[in-house]
Amino acid sequence: MRLMEVKEPEAVLILIRETFKTLNWEQINLEVAGGRVVAEEVQALEDVPGFHRSLVDGYALQAANTFGAGESFPALFQLHGEIQMGEAAPALPANGALYIPTGGMLPEGADAVIMIEDTAVLGDLLNCYRQVAPGDNVIRKGEDLAKGQVAIPAGRRIRAAEIGLLAALGIQELKVTRRPVVGILATGNEIVPYGTLELKPGQVRDCNTLAVGDMAKKLGAEVVFGGILEDDYPVFRREMENLLNKVDFLVLSGGSSVGTRDYTWRVLDSLSNGNFLAAGLAIQPGKPTLLVDCGGKPILGLPGHPVSALNIFNIFGTAIIQRLKGLDEHLFSPTVRAILTRNIPSSIGRTDYVRVRLEQKYGLVEAIPVFGRSSLLHTLAEAHGVITIPAGSEGLRAGVEVDVQLR
Amino acid sequence: MRLMEVKEPEAVLILIRETFKTLNWEQINLEVAGGRVVAEEVQALEDVPGFHRSLVDGYALQAANTFGAGESFPALFQLHGEIQMGEAAPALPANGALYIPTGGMLPEGADAVIMIEDTAVLGDLLNCYRQVAPGDNVIRKGEDLAKGQVAIPAGRRIRAAEIGLLAALGIQELKVTRRPVVGILATGNEIVPYGTLELKPGQVRDCNTLAVGDMAKKLGAEVVFGGILEDDYPVFRREMENLLNKVDFLVLSGGSSVGTRDYTWRVLDSLSNGNFLAAGLAIQPGKPTLLVDCGGKPILGLPGHPVSALNIFNIFGTAIIQRLKGLDEHLFSPTVRAILTRNIPSSIGRTDYVRVRLEQKYGLVEAIPVFGRSSLLHTLAEAHGVITIPAGSEGLRAGVEVDVQLR
Repeated sequence: MRLMEVKEPEAVLILIRETFKTLNWEQINLEVAGGRVVAEEVQALEDVPGFHRSLVDGYALQAANTFGAGESFPALFQLHGEIQMGEAAPALPANGALYIPTGGMLPEGADAVIMIEDTAVLGDLLNCYRQVAPGDNVIRKGEDLAKGQVAIPAGRRIRAAEIGLLAALGIQELKVTRRPVVGILATGNEIVPYGTLELKPGQVRDCNTLAVGDMAKKLGAEVVFGGILEDDYPVFRREMENLLNKVDFLVLSGGSSVGTRDYTWRVLDSLSNGNFLAAGLAIQPGKPTLLVDCGGKPILGLPGHPVSALNIFNIFGTAIIQRLKGLDEHLFSPTVRAILTRNIPSSIGRTDYVRVRLEQKYGLVEAIPVFGRSSLLHTLAEAHGVITIPAGSEGLRAGVEVDVQLR
Repeated sequence: MRLMEVKEPEAVLILIRETFKTLNWEQINLEVAGGRVVAEEVQALEDVPGFHRSLVDGYALQAANTFGAGESFPALFQLHGEIQMGEAAPALPANGALYIPTGGMLPEGADAVIMIEDTAVLGDLLNCYRQVAPGDNVIRKGEDLAKGQVAIPAGRRIRAAEIGLLAALGIQELKVTRRPVVGILATGNEIVPYGTLELKPGQVRDCNTLAVGDMAKKLGAEVVFGGILEDDYPVFRREMENLLNKVDFLVLSGGSSVGTRDYTWRVLDSLSNGNFLAAGLAIQPGKPTLLVDCGGKPILGLPGHPVSALNIFNIFGTAIIQRLKGLDEHLFSPTVRAILTRNIPSSIGRTDYVRVRLEQKYGLVEAIPVFGRSSLLHTLAEAHGVITIPAGSEGLRAGVEVDVQLR
C-alpha cells in the first residue's frame, strides 16, 4: 500500500476534497428532498409568478391617470367591480379601476395598484388622493424567477427556501446526489453488542458504533451496521471487503488496544488498491486515526476511545459525507461566542479540541472547559460543544472570547 | 375569544414557553433515539467501566514496588504473561507484572500500569525505569459513570454522546417525549397544489406548505398535510377542527389577501376555547402573524408571502416544537461572524430579519444583504442566513461585525 501520510487536520480535509468524488444521482420526489444536494441545475420552465400580481389590497388602474393627484385634487376613476382571487382578471376599461386583493391578478390595461388607504369610494366613483408610478405595488410576471433562469444551481443543499421555490415552479421530481451509504464495522475482542445484559469481566459494550451511526444519519447518510468482528485475520479481511463492496464509505470503530490497531493496519495494508492518506494525526483527542483511499472509497479507522472516535468522525466523517454528497458551496461553520473561564494550555504543532459547557451569565455566555480523559464519555455528554485550538497556538487564556462549535 | 396580544418577538417567545406544555412520553429503542428529548432521567444501573481498565499498552503492577526507580536504578518485576482483551485478568502474584493492552482489565493485586516505553524486558524479568503512582494510567471502575448516578437528565436532547453513554450502559429502550405532530393547512382561493401542471390565470402553486413541512420535519416533528381549503366558512371551520383534533400543533398557511386573512381570523375567533396570543407582530418580514392557544394547542397563522411565512415559522414554529418536545436546556444559537458590506436602515420599534449571502474574502466572511420583497422566494434561496436587527436599533452600518444565523 502506498503511503501519503499527513498529520495536520487542514491538510487531511483538503486531501478528502481532492481524493473522493461525488456519488452519482437519483431522481426523487420533492416531498423528500429536504437536506439532499441538487445534482443537476434546475431551470425555471415558466415565469414565477405567472402573471402580474398585486402586493397590496387596493385598486388596479393606469398610473398615468393618477399623475398630479394629491390630498386636495383627487384623481377620479370609474369603479368596475372586484378581481377575484385565483381567477383571471377582466380587462380594465379606459379610465377605470378594479378592486384588487393582495396577490390578485393585475387586469389587462392596468399597470399599477393604489393602496386602499390612499383612496375613497363614492358610489361607483373611486377618488385617488395620491399619484402612483407604473409598477407601483405590483410584482411583475417572472420577477421572482424568469423562464429559463437557473432556479437552483448544482451542488446546492435543499433547504426550505429551495423547496418553496421548486414547489412554486411545479417541480415534482428532481435529480439529487445519491444518499451515501456508510458501513460501520466494530473491532476488538473486548467489544460486545450494546444490548448485552450481563458483561463478563474484561468486556465492554460497543458504544461507538451507534453514536457514529447517529452522526452519519444526521448528515443524511444511510447506515449499515456490519457487526463486531474478533481479531481473526481471514474473517476480518473477508467481512471488511464484503461490507466495503456494499457501501460508499467504511468506518472501522472499536478496539483501543495496540493489538487491534496493528491488526486493522495489517488488514488495510493488505488491500491492493489502497493508499493510506493519514495514519496518526497531530490532533488531540484523536491521534490514532487511519484514513485510507481504497480505489476511490474512503475507509476511516477511528481511535478506540469514544471521545476521540466521535471527535474524529465529527471532523473527517462529516467532510467525507459532504464530499460524497457533492456539496459545492463553502460550508460556513456556525459557532456560539463565549468567554473562556479558565486557561487552557496547548502544545505547538498539535490541534486541540477542548470540550466546553456553556452557561448564560449576566447576558454573556461562558465557556467552561470540561476536562477529562478521552475515554470518559460523560465529559462529552456534559459538553455543549468544542473549542478548536490551532496547531500554532500555545493555548488560550481565561477571559478571551472563543467560538464554540456545538456538537 | 380572549385577546392577549403582544407585538415583540421576545415576548411571544416567552408566552410560548409559558402557555404550552411538553407532550407526554413514549418508550423507544436507542437506535432511533437521536434528536429526541429524554422524558425521564436515566440512571446508571451499573458502573461504567465495569472494571479498572488500562489506558495504555504497558504492564500492570503494584505502584509501591516502583518507588525509587529511575533511569539508572530500574525496579525489577517477575513477568507472568499477558492479559487478554475481553477476558478476566488472572490475579497478580506479589512483585509480579502482567502485560496489559489499552482497555485491558487490571488484574486483582495491581493498582497501576507502567507504559511500555518506560520498561525493558529481559527474559522473564521486567525492568521499570520510572516510578508510577497508584492509579497511574488506569481508568477506575465507575469513573465514567458510577452506579446510581444520573447518566442523562430529563429534558436533554439526545446527541451522539448521549447515545454512546446509553449504549455503554446497555440501555436498549428509554422514555422520550412524544414526537410532535404538526398539521399544515393551506388557505386561499388562488392557491393550487404544487403538483398542478398548468396554472389558470390568477392561480399560484402552494409553495409554503411543503417548505414549512420540511422545517418541521427537520425539527423532529411528524407532519400531516391537510390540503388546501377554499374560503368557505363551514367547510373551513370543520376541516380545521378535524385536523386540530389529530395534531399537537396546527399551522395555517397560504393566502395573502385581506379576504383570506379576515376569514382565518373569523374562524379562529369562533373557537370557544381559543385565546389570541398574538395578532400582528412588530416584525419585518412577517407582520401579519396570528398565534392562538386553543385549549393548550398552538395554532400559528403564517403570513401569506413566502419569505415572511418561512421567517415566522423559523422563529415561532421552532420555539413551539421545542416547547412541545420539552427541551429543557437553554438553546444557544450558533451564528457565523461576518462583516456587513452595506448600510441597513431599520425602524425603531420593529425587529428586522435581513437576508444575507455570505462570501469568503481575504480570510474574512462578508455578509452581503439580499434585498427584495418578501414575496420573492429567490431572495431567500440566495441567502445563507439572516441578521436580526433588534427593535431598539435604527440600523447597521457597513463594516460592522454581525452574527448571521444560517437558515
